[in-house]
Amino acid sequence: MAFQGKKLINDPNEVVTEFIEGLVETYPCLQYLDGFPEVKVVLRADVSGATYDKVAVISGGGSGHEPAHAGFVGEGMLTAAICGDVFASPNVDSILAGIRAVTGPMGCLLIVKNYTGDRLNFGLAAEQAKSEGYKIETVIVGDDCALPPPRGIAGRRGLAGTVLVHKVAGAAAAAGLSLADVAAEANRASERVGTMGVALSVCTLPGRVTSDRLGQEKMELGLGIHGEPGAAVVDLQPVDVVVSHVLKQILSTETHYVTITRGSRVVLMINGLGATPLMELMIASGNAVHKMQLEHGLAVERVYTGSFMTSLDMAGFSISIMKVDQAILQRLDAPTKAPAWPVGVDGSHPPAKIPVPIPPSRSTKSDEALSRPKVLNQLGYLLEAAIEAAANAVVNLRDDLNGWDSKVGDGDCGSTMFKGAMAILEDLKKYYPLNDAAETVNEIGSSVKIMGGTSGIIYNIFCKAAYAKLKENTAPVVISRQWADALDAAIAAVSKYGGARAGYRTLLDALIPASAVLRERLDAGDDPSTAFLLSSEAALSGAESTKHMQAQAGRSSYVSGEILATVPDPGAMAAASWYRAAALAVKEKCQIS
Amino acid sequence: MAFQGKKLINDPNEVVTEFIEGLVETYPCLQYLDGFPEVKVVLRADVSGATYDKVAVISGGGSGHEPAHAGFVGEGMLTAAICGDVFASPNVDSILAGIRAVTGPMGCLLIVKNYTGDRLNFGLAAEQAKSEGYKIETVIVGDDCALPPPRGIAGRRGLAGTVLVHKVAGAAAAAGLSLADVAAEANRASERVGTMGVALSVCTLPGRVTSDRLGQEKMELGLGIHGEPGAAVVDLQPVDVVVSHVLKQILSTETHYVTITRGSRVVLMINGLGATPLMELMIASGNAVHKMQLEHGLAVERVYTGSFMTSLDMAGFSISIMKVDQAILQRLDAPTKAPAWPVGVDGSHPPAKIPVPIPPSRSTKSDEALSRPKVLNQLGYLLEAAIEAAANAVVNLRDDLNGWDSKVGDGDCGSTMFKGAMAILEDLKKYYPLNDAAETVNEIGSSVKIMGGTSGIIYNIFCKAAYAKLKENTAPVVISRQWADALDAAIAAVSKYGGARAGYRTLLDALIPASAVLRERLDAGDDPSTAFLLSSEAALSGAESTKHMQAQAGRSSYVSGEILATVPDPGAMAAASWYRAAALAVKEKCQIS
Repeated sequence: MAFQGKKLINDPNEVVTEFIEGLVETYPCLQYLDGFPEVKVVLRADVSGATYDKVAVISGGGSGHEPAHAGFVGEGMLTAAICGDVFASPNVDSILAGIRAVTGPMGCLLIVKNYTGDRLNFGLAAEQAKSEGYKIETVIVGDDCALPPPRGIAGRRGLAGTVLVHKVAGAAAAAGLSLADVAAEANRASERVGTMGVALSVCTLPGRVTSDRLGQEKMELGLGIHGEPGAAVVDLQPVDVVVSHVLKQILSTETHYVTITRGSRVVLMINGLGATPLMELMIASGNAVHKMQLEHGLAVERVYTGSFMTSLDMAGFSISIMKVDQAILQRLDAPTKAPAWPVGVDGSHPPAKIPVPIPPSRSTKSDEALSRPKVLNQLGYLLEAAIEAAANAVVNLRDDLNGWDSKVGDGDCGSTMFKGAMAILEDLKKYYPLNDAAETVNEIGSSVKIMGGTSGIIYNIFCKAAYAKLKENTAPVVISRQWADALDAAIAAVSKYGGARAGYRTLLDALIPASAVLRERLDAGDDPSTAFLLSSEAALSGAESTKHMQAQAGRSSYVSGEILATVPDPGAMAAASWYRAAALAVKEKCQIS
Repeated sequence: MAFQGKKLINDPNEVVTEFIEGLVETYPCLQYLDGFPEVKVVLRADVSGATYDKVAVISGGGSGHEPAHAGFVGEGMLTAAICGDVFASPNVDSILAGIRAVTGPMGCLLIVKNYTGDRLNFGLAAEQAKSEGYKIETVIVGDDCALPPPRGIAGRRGLAGTVLVHKVAGAAAAAGLSLADVAAEANRASERVGTMGVALSVCTLPGRVTSDRLGQEKMELGLGIHGEPGAAVVDLQPVDVVVSHVLKQILSTETHYVTITRGSRVVLMINGLGATPLMELMIASGNAVHKMQLEHGLAVERVYTGSFMTSLDMAGFSISIMKVDQAILQRLDAPTKAPAWPVGVDGSHPPAKIPVPIPPSRSTKSDEALSRPKVLNQLGYLLEAAIEAAANAVVNLRDDLNGWDSKVGDGDCGSTMFKGAMAILEDLKKYYPLNDAAETVNEIGSSVKIMGGTSGIIYNIFCKAAYAKLKENTAPVVISRQWADALDAAIAAVSKYGGARAGYRTLLDALIPASAVLRERLDAGDDPSTAFLLSSEAALSGAESTKHMQAQAGRSSYVSGEILATVPDPGAMAAASWYRAAALAVKEKCQIS
């Protein structure tokens, strides 16, 4: 079944005029002639033919190649662009109107892509303009390298390389050169550029049905920019294979389209055909530069990556290579206000770009080898017991956590927490500096990184914030109130970066009640281990209460309230269980000692 | 059947590092940290943290949004960009490496899009960097206006509006402001921007299968930039309807996401999502500016149209509107070397862009009313007879021409020529200035424009060149040798702009032999009307000989030699027949008189 191509447009017959209206709204320096729909001419807002004291440079052709050609209008590049309908040559009256609007005494260069319609229409306009007394030169660009050496009328098609010719000619004109000299530079540039394209999909004209000529597994080599079939349809290949093939074709010494040899200085243009993401274009650029340098021995002086001369919504790109010398490079580097010409591309290109070394951490702690103290003090003794019990509680709860999570999340909460707990148990034996509470908490943060995902980071932030709070204490012993402060700081950091608050059905619904009770019991004068134990009951009941909460984040927020009411939040249950186990262990050790 | 998405890439796991390699080859001012594949950080090549004397501005997040964020690295915008894997938050070590690489004594602002992963990773890195002694501030951007007012953890997503926050912060930092002031400006900007997206297709992750969730007739409103479903799936609509809907949603006074009211000064960003041609983006821009001015009473100060924050190969765009004042506008307009920030967008935006009037022709001839002379001189008498006979010959040959053309072309040669001939017959009676040969030839050129297509122009160029040649003659009478010169000039022009030569199976294969015989017989001293008649026999035999020629242009070049051998070129036959008829008419009139 054939469908009209999906496009974000209004009337398919008005796409070009509406494009121009949007273009001039975007760029205050551009204007258009009041001749819609017949005359579709974009010109520099600051140029009036009667008084213009430089050579005018005009190009144009069918539309559908945006930003070409109107996006290259601007000081230092084109003076005007003549827009035809989509893939249709502009009419002679349009071209004449454009010539008259911007041509002063210095004359006008027409840069024409080599298509019969464009040649004839621009040719007739040139003849007519000459008969009106204008000085006109015409340069025809045919940079296509896809087809065997030309025979007959058609010759080589004009492709994206034309944009480089625009730039050279525009810069020459801006430098004040005569019409003959500007035309000579444009001709010289056009003889030195070769282009070949590759496409994954064909384009769809506005209002027409979509073609899927290439299907899901084919690509096309050597295509034009009007949806015309390419030179070959082949299986989809990795882009470096594609780039190799295209480079070989452009640089072929058999067809000799461009006289580029080992040691030549060149510029590279990777041109997206309309629907190609910049990521893919940049990948092609990197691959092409590498191969041009290493396999073809070329000095790549500039790289232009972007969408310059497109073919509506075609997915694919073309590669253009232009042989340059200092004179051409100067024209390419010259400043321009044309909005679609790339910026930031000049500057020296060394044969290899050496990446910058990663700077070291300012902290030197990582260099000190941590190790478990040979003798544990009272604190270290309690800490070891608490950590071990807490981790084991999580290990034992794995299946329950996974079970709850499979109903409200992605089912891996238990496995993730298990991974962290196992890492803690292992690291605890090896190098936790247990007699230093702050550093031990910091190390727990490092151990739980292994959990990955959100939980790993949340617990890391939890430990990092607790660590910072504990470090504020300069005394050798950590008192119970400082532990409570550290718990508060950790909860605050998790809330700040994670965005959760009480009642959001997260681990905070276990920890916030625990913190509140801990502080309350300590304030009431309870023995610290008793306060800890009582607070852990609050943690448990807080975790259980999450059954009655709406989820505010993650996958649980898509689960119905009925299902949620049957299970507690697994993250909250995990937190309550390690907290409870730690409290029980501390109480037990305190009773023994 | 599910197929892997078509992409021009190599290993799907290496798309981000290969993107970065291409990016830094394209832009000499960018560099990257030597930490692939874990650490993927792009930074300014000219900044070293130890000595950097401005506030560093860092952003980043998952990849797949190119050019965001790495394309916005450059003086005056971001100092570094931290790239995660596709749609995955960068790891903490990457972020820390980036902070360490570019942060000097002035400190560092982290601009984070509001996604849980980014908040947590950037948050942890910020806490870690602070513990190493760096001054760090964090601004979280959530500009999404698609979903009902936020509840819970997630809040509003960070979308393309973030790029405007980058620009404001980067310009503030470049101006030398303190970390607190840069953060304050970034916060102020982020509170004033709202964004909503619309998509025609969903994106495909590298190496994954393609989804066609939306099919051929649906579009999605209010989507995110990671392929997550939008707020609503609706029927495809004209873009002005879509733009209206999105503007209303962003500017809604119910949700009050951004406090923009009638008379507010704003900037507009139309952001392509990756596979949207610039033509469509510009159409959306023009539509949006119009509606914002007329329907919402806003002063649109700047328009940014392009692909800034994409979603891989998604087709669609987002609209962002930011409320601005002079201070924000100054930051947006400040120069930057970030390659993906648009150029040429500053300058005054009047409420309506008035197009430039079409300049008049320099020639005043068109003002003189042409008319058929009341009395014809000898020349006019012959001319009228020749033109009438030539046109009638073409009229009578219509079906033959169409028949030949249906075998080797598109079958309309006869109809096209018929149209021209009928126009000539009509105009001849009305206003050909028959006593002036040159002007009459020029008018024939105008008459045949109606044919359209290639033939219309070819014959127009033919007449225009003959006209120019005839005009060189200042004597009142045109002698036979001048007619021969005019024919040569006309043939030369058609060959130059059309690209055909003798033997290319075109109308020139009738006219070139005719011209040769005409000159030969005149040189031999023949009576002019006899020479004309003899040359017309050469035209006929020349046209017949095209049967044995290979086509060099147009559709005939795709037709096999066997078929071509059965028909002459219809264009050549048409030319021979009008030429022959004219010669016969002239001969007859000369014999009578």
